[in-house]
Amino acid sequence: MPSAWDHFSQWSSTLADLAGVSALLGWDRETGMPHGGAETRAQQLGTLAAAYHRELVRPDLDGVLDELSGDDGLPPVRRRQVELARRDRARAARVPESLVRALSEAKSRSVAVWVDTRPAGDWGTFAPALAAVVELRRREAGYLADGGEPYDALLDVFEPGARAVDLEPLFRDLRARLVPLVERGTARPRRPFPRRRWPADAQLALARDVAELVGYDLTSGVITVSAHPFTISPGYGDVRFTTRLDEANPVGNVLTVLHEAGHALYEQGFPEEYRRTGLLDAPSLGAHESQSRFWENHVGRGAAFWRRMEPVMRGRFPQAMDGLGAEDLHAEATAVQRTLIRVEADEVTYNLHVALRFELELALVRGDLGVDDLPAAWDARMEELLGVRPTGPADGVMQDIHWAEGMFGYFPTYTLGSLYAAQIAETVDAELGGLSAAVEDGRLAEVLAVLRERVHRHARLLDTPELMRRATGRELSADALVAHLSRVVA
Amino acid sequence: MPSAWDHFSQWSSTLADLAGVSALLGWDRETGMPHGGAETRAQQLGTLAAAYHRELVRPDLDGVLDELSGDDGLPPVRRRQVELARRDRARAARVPESLVRALSEAKSRSVAVWVDTRPAGDWGTFAPALAAVVELRRREAGYLADGGEPYDALLDVFEPGARAVDLEPLFRDLRARLVPLVERGTARPRRPFPRRRWPADAQLALARDVAELVGYDLTSGVITVSAHPFTISPGYGDVRFTTRLDEANPVGNVLTVLHEAGHALYEQGFPEEYRRTGLLDAPSLGAHESQSRFWENHVGRGAAFWRRMEPVMRGRFPQAMDGLGAEDLHAEATAVQRTLIRVEADEVTYNLHVALRFELELALVRGDLGVDDLPAAWDARMEELLGVRPTGPADGVMQDIHWAEGMFGYFPTYTLGSLYAAQIAETVDAELGGLSAAVEDGRLAEVLAVLRERVHRHARLLDTPELMRRATGRELSADALVAHLSRVVA
Repeated sequence: MPSAWDHFSQWSSTLADLAGVSALLGWDRETGMPHGGAETRAQQLGTLAAAYHRELVRPDLDGVLDELSGDDGLPPVRRRQVELARRDRARAARVPESLVRALSEAKSRSVAVWVDTRPAGDWGTFAPALAAVVELRRREAGYLADGGEPYDALLDVFEPGARAVDLEPLFRDLRARLVPLVERGTARPRRPFPRRRWPADAQLALARDVAELVGYDLTSGVITVSAHPFTISPGYGDVRFTTRLDEANPVGNVLTVLHEAGHALYEQGFPEEYRRTGLLDAPSLGAHESQSRFWENHVGRGAAFWRRMEPVMRGRFPQAMDGLGAEDLHAEATAVQRTLIRVEADEVTYNLHVALRFELELALVRGDLGVDDLPAAWDARMEELLGVRPTGPADGVMQDIHWAEGMFGYFPTYTLGSLYAAQIAETVDAELGGLSAAVEDGRLAEVLAVLRERVHRHARLLDTPELMRRATGRELSADALVAHLSRVVA
Repeated sequence: MPSAWDHFSQWSSTLADLAGVSALLGWDRETGMPHGGAETRAQQLGTLAAAYHRELVRPDLDGVLDELSGDDGLPPVRRRQVELARRDRARAARVPESLVRALSEAKSRSVAVWVDTRPAGDWGTFAPALAAVVELRRREAGYLADGGEPYDALLDVFEPGARAVDLEPLFRDLRARLVPLVERGTARPRRPFPRRRWPADAQLALARDVAELVGYDLTSGVITVSAHPFTISPGYGDVRFTTRLDEANPVGNVLTVLHEAGHALYEQGFPEEYRRTGLLDAPSLGAHESQSRFWENHVGRGAAFWRRMEPVMRGRFPQAMDGLGAEDLHAEATAVQRTLIRVEADEVTYNLHVALRFELELALVRGDLGVDDLPAAWDARMEELLGVRPTGPADGVMQDIHWAEGMFGYFPTYTLGSLYAAQIAETVDAELGGLSAAVEDGRLAEVLAVLRERVHRHARLLDTPELMRRATGRELSADALVAHLSRVVA
C-alpha cells in the first residue's frame, strides 16, 4: 500500500507535469509554431486545462489531504505543500463549472476581438466583448470573496495575501511622490542617441553575453526572440526566455535581457528537491517581478553596469560603437519621458501607468465604473498623472491585452515587484558594501548569491509578504523605490 | 443530453489532443530543449502516456461504442472511427498494466544504456538490458497474439494487417533479386565528388527551396536541423520536419529534405474534416514510408530532378557549384556502395540492411535466436548479404536505436514503404505520361495532385493493403522496386 504521502506526491507530480507541458505549448506558440497550428494549439491548451482541473479537484484526494493535514509529525516542507494544494483545490471547487466554461469562452472571444480591433482602436466593437468578461469575472469574484472585497479574490490568484485596502494607500503615496520626480526627470537635457545600425544577429549574441554575465545557465535554458518578451519554464532544469531586437537601438534589448534573465535566474535558483512539486514556483507575481526589476533597474540602469558593458558591446558592434561610450549608453538607459505606452515607459514614469490601471480596474470590479465609461476615465486620468493624452483607444485604453484576457488584479503586481526590488537592492547594497561597486568590479556572482540565499532558494515555501520581510528586514513601502528614483533624476 | 456520437467525438478529440501534445514534446526535445530539461521531459512524456492510456480505456465508453456499433445508419466515415477506436482499446486492454509499466521501465533503461555504450560498442553491458526488453516484448506478444504468430502482434502496431507469413517470401524474393543489382551497381566506375565547402546557412535555405518546390506549405510547417532527421505533426495545420547538414556535401541534405517532405506532404494532405479525430493519420508506417521514398528515390534520384535543381543550387552556392553540373549531382545521388550503416545506405543496398534486421528480429521474437548469439549472427549475415563485415558492435548490431526501444516489427515497414513507393511511381508515371518528364517540365504540382487524390486524402480511412490496392491497382510485390533499381544500375 502506498502511504498517504506517496499518494499525494504522485498526484502533485502529475499536476506539475501537466502545468509544465502547458508552459511548453505556450513557449512554442510564441517562438516556433507555424501560423496554421493556432487553432489546434488553442484546443490542446483547453484540453490540458480541463485535464489539470479534473486532476486538481479529484475527490479521492480528500481523504489523503485530511490524513496529511492531521499528521502532526509531517515535516514543514511537506506541510506547506499540503496547505498550498488545499488552497488551490478550495479555490477551484468554489466556482461552478458552468461559470468556468463561460469565462473561458468569453475570454477567448474577447482576446480574439482585441487582436482584431486594437490596431485601429475600434473600441465600439471591443467594448461588448470586454463587458462580458468583466461581468463574468465579477460573478466569479462574488463566489470566491465570500462576502469580502471582490477585487481581493481576483488579486489573490496573482498575489496571495495582497488586499485592495493595503494597496490603495500604497499607490496614493507612490503617486504623490512620483509626479515631482517625473517633473525633474523630464526637465533634464536629453542626450540624443545617434542613428546607426545594430545588426540583429550580433544583438542576439549580445543577449547571450548579458545573460551569462549575470549568471544565467544556458545548459538549462534557451534564449530566442519573440514579439512580446517573456520567461517560461516547462519544468525543472529548463528555464527559457525571449527578448526583442530593435536594429536602431541596442539598449532596449540589453534591459529586456536583464529583466527576463532576472525572472529566469529566480527559477534556476529553485532547489532541485522541489522538482515536480507545488513548491517549484514563486509565491506570487510580485515576488517574481522583484527579481526582474532588480536586474533591469538596479543593475542595468546603473552607470557601473554600462562601464562593464562598453568593451563587450565594442566587440560585438565595432562600427556602431565608434565614438560612443558608457555614458551615452547609460544616458539612453535612464532617459525619462512622458509617453503613452506602458511597455515602452521608463522606470520613473512606469508605476504611474500601473497606478492608473489599478484605480480603473478596482472601480470596474467594484461596479463603480462601467465599461462604457472606461475610455473617458482613462484619457482624463492619463492627462492628470502623466500630462499626456492618448490619440485614441489604440494608444490608450486598448493598449494592453490583460483586461481582454480577464486578468484583473494582475497590474498591481508590477508595482509590488518594483517596490520589493528597490528594498532588495538596498539589502544587497548593504550586504556587499555597495551594489554599484560590486557591478563595477565584476562581482556579479556575489550579487546573485545574495538573491539565491535570501529569495530564490525559498521558492514557494513562504508567502510573499513573509519572504520579503525576512529578505529585506522591512515592511513593504514606497520609500526605497522613491529614494532610488530620486537618485536617478538627480 | 449529448448523443452517443457527441460523446464519442469529444473523447476522440481528447485522445487526439493528448497525442499531439506528446508529439510537440518530442519535437522540442530533439530541436530546442536544453540539456538540463531531459529528465523532466521524460517524466512529462510518461505522465502524458499514462493520461492517454487512462483516457483510451475509460470504461464509460463501452456503452457508447456498443450503441454506435449497433447503429446501422452510421455513415461509413464515422463507422470507421468507431472501429479503429475499438481496435485500439481492445489492444490496450489485453496487456496487464504491470507488464506495460515493466516494459516502459525496461525500455527507458535499455535506451539509456544504448546511448552510453553504443559509441564504444560495449555489447557486454548493453546485452542484459536488451535481453530484458526482448523477454518482456515476447510476453506482451503472447497476450496479444492469442495463440497466433507472436511477431504479428508486434508488427500490428506499426503495420496493421501485415503478417510474417507474407513478409518472409517477399523478403526472400527481394533479397535474391537485389544481390545481383548490388553487384552491378558497385561495379560501375565511381565519379569522385569534389572537396568543397557548402555553407550550412545556405543549405538550410536550400532545404526550404526544395520543400517549397515539391509543394510543402511553410505557413503550416517548420523546417529545422536535428541529429536524426524526422517528421512530426503536433496537430492539424502544423506538420514539421528536420534535416541534417553536411558542409562537405549537399546531396544528402537534398535527399533528406525530399524524404521528410514526402512524409510531411502526406500529412498536409489529410482532409481538414479529420482534424482531432483518429482518422488524421496514415494507416501504417509502410504507407507513410511510401510517400517519403517516392520523393526521395523516384523523384530525387532521377536525372531530371537534378537538372531542375542545378540553377537553384548555383544561386545558393555560386562558389561550390563552379564547374559542377547536374550530372555530377545526379551521379553522387545514385552511387552504390557496400557499407555498414543502414541510415547512410544507398537505395540499392538499403533493403538488404532491412532484410537482415527482419530475419534476426523474427528469430528473436520466435525464440529461435538468443540475444547472446545476436552479434555473431549479425556479422555473418552482413557478410553474406552485403559482402562487408562490421568492425565491431558499434557499426554492426548496435547501430540502430530501434531494438533498444523495443520496436520489433518496425524495420519491415521501411521495405514495405519502398515497395509501395515503386508501385506508386509506376502509377504516377502512367497517369502523367512519364514521371521524369513531369519533373523535367516543373509539373511537380501535378505529381503531388496524383498522390493527394490516390493516397493522402484517404488518411486512415482504409487499411494499407486496401489503400494501396486501390491506389496502384496491384497486389504488393517486389517487381516494381526491382525494375526501378535495375534502371538505376543500368
